Amino acid sequence: MTAPTFDTVPTPDAEVAAAARARQDNLTKPRGALGRLEDLSVWVSSCQGVCPPKQFERARVVVFAADHGVARAGVSAYPPEVTAQMVANIDAGGAAINVLAELAGAGVRLVDVAVDTDAPGTHKVRRSSENIAVADALSEDEVAAAVAAGRDIADEEVDSGADLLIAGDMGIGNTTAATVLVCALTNTEPVAAIGRGTGIDDAGWIRKTAAVRDALYRVHPVRSDPVAVLRVGGGADLAAMAGFLAQAALRRTPVLLDGMVVTSAALVAERLAPGARAWWQAGHRSTEPAHTLALAQLELEPIVDLGMRLGEGSGAVVALPVVRAAIATLAQMATFDSAGVSGRSDS
Amino acid sequence: MTAPTFDTVPTPDAEVAAAARARQDNLTKPRGALGRLEDLSVWVSSCQGVCPPKQFERARVVVFAADHGVARAGVSAYPPEVTAQMVANIDAGGAAINVLAELAGAGVRLVDVAVDTDAPGTHKVRRSSENIAVADALSEDEVAAAVAAGRDIADEEVDSGADLLIAGDMGIGNTTAATVLVCALTNTEPVAAIGRGTGIDDAGWIRKTAAVRDALYRVHPVRSDPVAVLRVGGGADLAAMAGFLAQAALRRTPVLLDGMVVTSAALVAERLAPGARAWWQAGHRSTEPAHTLALAQLELEPIVDLGMRLGEGSGAVVALPVVRAAIATLAQMATFDSAGVSGRSDS
Repeated sequence: MTAPTFDTVPTPDAEVAAAARARQDNLTKPRGALGRLEDLSVWVSSCQGVCPPKQFERARVVVFAADHGVARAGVSAYPPEVTAQMVANIDAGGAAINVLAELAGAGVRLVDVAVDTDAPGTHKVRRSSENIAVADALSEDEVAAAVAAGRDIADEEVDSGADLLIAGDMGIGNTTAATVLVCALTNTEPVAAIGRGTGIDDAGWIRKTAAVRDALYRVHPVRSDPVAVLRVGGGADLAAMAGFLAQAALRRTPVLLDGMVVTSAALVAERLAPGARAWWQAGHRSTEPAHTLALAQLELEPIVDLGMRLGEGSGAVVALPVVRAAIATLAQMATFDSAGVSGRSDS
Repeated sequence: MTAPTFDTVPTPDAEVAAAARARQDNLTKPRGALGRLEDLSVWVSSCQGVCPPKQFERARVVVFAADHGVARAGVSAYPPEVTAQMVANIDAGGAAINVLAELAGAGVRLVDVAVDTDAPGTHKVRRSSENIAVADALSEDEVAAAVAAGRDIADEEVDSGADLLIAGDMGIGNTTAATVLVCALTNTEPVAAIGRGTGIDDAGWIRKTAAVRDALYRVHPVRSDPVAVLRVGGGADLAAMAGFLAQAALRRTPVLLDGMVVTSAALVAERLAPGARAWWQAGHRSTEPAHTLALAQLELEPIVDLGMRLGEGSGAVVALPVVRAAIATLAQMATFDSAGVSGRSDS
């Protein structure tokens, strides 16, 4: 396969944004009193190209599941077989993302990109990935196939009517690969970026740090090439998420980013398709240090900060009601004129 | 009327809290990975006295509306008649709280405690209040009646099946009186506590600071008596909210606090009924400096921080879906055993 390329990313509609801001300023509340909700409502309007904005009718969470060869190096508190077990749990509706998405009115789709089983999958690239501490995660064909899978999934969702997309992750060892991406693209030393993932102890943290450092040494020569970074230090799930996030922007579809793993892929997606970040908001801030580094580079401010570190899309889905609230206020509140409420004394 | 007194506040059920924590630790996610959601789920369980907790079926917002004599001193960006206009707007369903509460699945009730009109009301104490910069806000009878009104409202709501209570405020000038309460009860200089309320300019800020300072001078001799603080430097709405919040705790009903005005009344309620704060969570952090001072004294950490400063209960209602998410995870997620997912490698 040839290396993935993306067309120029469109920008959200600036004229609609101005109209939305003007409408916000005439709603029956002091100007600015809804804080971040006002900004979010303007953002949704500008993405939809319409003011007032429409409430999301088909919000979709896509959970990208994959194993990581580096998990065998003892970088996680959980054994690698938990990936496949959690895939089954999500399929059965028992995981956090199922419960949280149902409450927030979002659908959940699980995509097996590279789980280490023989289970087939339309978008399956391979079983697991190589151990990035000692080898490239993927071949050139595999990374191209994974990015293409993510693009295809975004197209499928948008073509089916999705009006908000959320990417989630499931895969033992995926924060190790994600940390490699963040360190490489933000030029950060591993010790400043590495967190506890699923809850590793000190010895696990040392193993994780060594794995990230070894992978980074091999990523360094190719770090100006985002696809090569995914190939050498990432994995099939991260490559698919990067393609998904870039394609969502090309399809003018707003996205809520989840935590550390998804945001590391977003860093790559912004390199693949510059400007894509205008179509994204950061749902939450996780406890992983690398997440904050990635958000800073993307210049995104999380909507909620609840000490979550689960992945699956869970943090983004918890933030979804806040965005819905933003839409509802701009779409449904009375204006000063319509309600007969006096304006400011000084204006 | 005699001065209000409250029985001893019960504590949320510690045994149920322990059972809820144990259940959280066996759900299919790393221990602690849901962050604040885990703490909130345990809190709801302990308030309800049952594990797993039940989703709120009758969440209720009570908006306490009143005018304040101090508004005539130019402490707000809006003229005093806006209180009555906004009461009509809330009754008509056009205010932010209407839109946000509907989305969050909460009912809204507006109570006219002391709006400066002849409109009657079951719980109306008087028209407006005196200008606290130069006179006591209320008489002894009025403050007792206002606290009793708040208690009665809490009883009415709980007796009607409310399983979560939210207090909101509506009243031009109310942040000035609320700031007096916070300064008096946290021993803070006015300049460190006074914010921009609805968005006053510098001259308005100076007038507001002078009014707070003058009121505090008169509150100082009585500041060890919470009812007297409400009478001298508060208002009928603040007294009613204090009674409401204390009574909610006595009725074992969880509460989400809103912003600066409600939290100032919560400071008083905790003096009236020590331990009541165990039944409250802080919904959000507003931009008013006095709000952060009050939250610190109550040792409450806001659930969201979105730069809101509207009142009406709006911040608490935006936080409600997060609490619902906490309940849903503890009540509905699969456990490691039920889903057949392996536990930690190291345990």
